[in-house]
Amino acid sequence: MAKKVGILVEYDFEDAELVYPYYRFQEAGFNTVLIGPKGGTQYKGKHGYPVISDVSSSDISAQDLVALIMPGGWAPDRLRRDKKLVQLVKDMDAQEKTLAAICHGPWMLCSAKIIKGRHVTSFVAIKDDIENAGGIFKNEPVVVDKNIITSRAPRDLPVFCKAILKQIQE
Amino acid sequence: MAKKVGILVEYDFEDAELVYPYYRFQEAGFNTVLIGPKGGTQYKGKHGYPVISDVSSSDISAQDLVALIMPGGWAPDRLRRDKKLVQLVKDMDAQEKTLAAICHGPWMLCSAKIIKGRHVTSFVAIKDDIENAGGIFKNEPVVVDKNIITSRAPRDLPVFCKAILKQIQE
Repeated sequence: MAKKVGILVEYDFEDAELVYPYYRFQEAGFNTVLIGPKGGTQYKGKHGYPVISDVSSSDISAQDLVALIMPGGWAPDRLRRDKKLVQLVKDMDAQEKTLAAICHGPWMLCSAKIIKGRHVTSFVAIKDDIENAGGIFKNEPVVVDKNIITSRAPRDLPVFCKAILKQIQE
Repeated sequence: MAKKVGILVEYDFEDAELVYPYYRFQEAGFNTVLIGPKGGTQYKGKHGYPVISDVSSSDISAQDLVALIMPGGWAPDRLRRDKKLVQLVKDMDAQEKTLAAICHGPWMLCSAKIIKGRHVTSFVAIKDDIENAGGIFKNEPVVVDKNIITSRAPRDLPVFCKAILKQIQE
């Protein structure tokens, strides 16, 4: 059975940052699973792209996944209100599984309190949140610190996904 | 210099069918060029994703490209009103360069009159247009007939892009 890559989804996700990884990991032979606060629910991107979540935060655990992708947009502001999703991020980190966040996605890493002393990038607007959470901010297209992979914006999607694939295909 | 992959753009393109190839071919080391009736112009997808065209139909020719991608949505209905874009498709075919169309994208192949006797798929709504243009319709995720590669819908994007890459990386 194909390994599962989870992708977090909530209203106002950055459309390309969800769509690109969603199809990219399928193309690479993985099963992509859209995880939202609710399962079987339509969420629209900040530009309007509609997707339907596969499972709820109650119906998935770190054991099920090889990697968790956190797209940006305003969705992470909503996603981190769901304690089970924040716990999922903590659990993935404890199991040293790939956590990949782009744009405003690293807000999830701040809320999970797992970036103290670790190298992280993000959209510039949340640089202070990264640093206040103890992260070491680096303004680069992609930053890999062990299992944590971060990027800044949609234009970084090609290097972001390449870095994730490198890690989960090893 | 990186080889160029052209992607046609007009209002109401299917967002994922433009976004996925756009980043996918960059990830594979190609230069992606958004070609619209006008250059430097913002076009929005049918769900609202905004992109800016790189060049106009007057400023590109088949010699510049290794492949031309035609996303779906309602954009192809508009794209084929531009005679230079239809001519670009004809020229690419005459040079046996990769022409890849998905969903409603194959309308461009119908207007270019290059599919007589060739195997093609598309979104089901335009099956009759394919057949009236002399194409042999096949309901499969991806159909490859020499330099013409076609798919049906966003869910086919992983196999669609894989088939294009196989051809242009050879």
